[in-house]
Amino acid sequence: MPYVNIKVTDEGVSAAQKRMLIEGSTALLERVLNKPRHTTFVVIDEVATDNWGVGGESVTALRAKERGE
Amino acid sequence: MPYVNIKVTDEGVSAAQKRMLIEGSTALLERVLNKPRHTTFVVIDEVATDNWGVGGESVTALRAKERGE
Amino acid sequence: MPYVNIKVTDEGVSAAQKRMLIEGSTALLERVLNKPRHTTFVVIDEVATDNWGVGGESVTALRAKERGE
Amino acid sequence: MPYVNIKVTDEGVSAAQKRMLIEGSTALLERVLNKPRHTTFVVIDEVATDNWGVGGESVTALRAKERGE
Amino acid sequence: MPYVNIKVTDEGVSAAQKRMLIEGSTALLERVLNKPRHTTFVVIDEVATDNWGVGGESVTALRAKERGE
Amino acid sequence: MPYVNIKVTDEGVSAAQKRMLIEGSTALLERVLNKPRHTTFVVIDEVATDNWGVGGESVTALRAKERGE
Repeated sequence: MPYVNIKVTDEGVSAAQKRMLIEGSTALLERVLNKPRHTTFVVIDEVATDNWGVGGESVTALRAKERGE
Repeated sequence: MPYVNIKVTDEGVSAAQKRMLIEGSTALLERVLNKPRHTTFVVIDEVATDNWGVGGESVTALRAKERGE
Repeated sequence: MPYVNIKVTDEGVSAAQKRMLIEGSTALLERVLNKPRHTTFVVIDEVATDNWGVGGESVTALRAKERGE
Repeated sequence: MPYVNIKVTDEGVSAAQKRMLIEGSTALLERVLNKPRHTTFVVIDEVATDNWGVGGESVTALRAKERGE
Repeated sequence: MPYVNIKVTDEGVSAAQKRMLIEGSTALLERVLNKPRHTTFVVIDEVATDNWGVGGESVTALRAKERGE
Repeated sequence: MPYVNIKVTDEGVSAAQKRMLIEGSTALLERVLNKPRHTTFVVIDEVATDNWGVGGESVTALRAKERGE
């Protein structure tokens, strides 16, 4: 009964991509630890770029730098 | 000073139901572990059905199957 | 498919008390939100008192104060 | 590579305040544990007051009491 | 900068299996969302079977039933 | 009533350093968001280096590389 939580920035993750993350995580637990597929829960959290920091800066600021702003 | 996090799918949980989850969790910690009520925190996360997976599928897909779609 | 995470300080929680927390949380989700019992996951984390802080102090320090040390 | 998660009620946290939380957490880990700044992740979760409970009541109810309602 | 948390029961996960979970999660985020590998963090939590509940029972109890006890 | 969770690798964090993390986080929430000190909870998780991955590798492996192994 694994539980997988995936946190990513909220930058346009599509429903199809979410399905791939759910399927891929579930398959990974099955392949590595032989966990029955129906017992795996996956929760995806999409986090606003203002609310995610790396290296002391928000991802909002990092993205602006990447764009040369 | 317990901390309880309840994650459920975002399928119309009312404010009254949230109050019952908060009250019920707090009472449970008091009853079982004798934790003073004022020290218990409860955080409820409502997760979009696209973002929750069980058995490799999103809850969105599971709900559609349940409805016979 | 609710997921409940209960964090408490690691101060001698017995296996019987853990079973009561698991049973009680599962029953709460069933009663309030009509969630099928078999779909509820509960994870209990026991946290060392050095690793839990309230009001800027560790619970280790708070417990010493309560004992009049 | 520390990971810091800060949960606060969703009561008007500004982007500037979020930047201060990100910067402050990152600096704290650097100062106390000598963690390189670029390896620290910070995620801020803003939780609706209906979804946060203290002492068995929602923060929505607590705020109403504080206002004398 | 994704963050992946994998919780599994503490039933003999080897260091090699942990490496496969870390590698597999990182590859999944790269494949599905094009996330640079060096920005993905993975944290694996191993939870004692007394501390994990499914369907109102501890995994300790479920495992005993599976063994026919 | 903020809740702060700090995850770091389990590489010899002392009780004094934990107290500094608790005090520092609590002071940060007070300074930035004016949160009363007594309402802030801090939980520190120490994660084994086998259980933490960055860039697809465990921290155990990264530390060995840093030591030139």
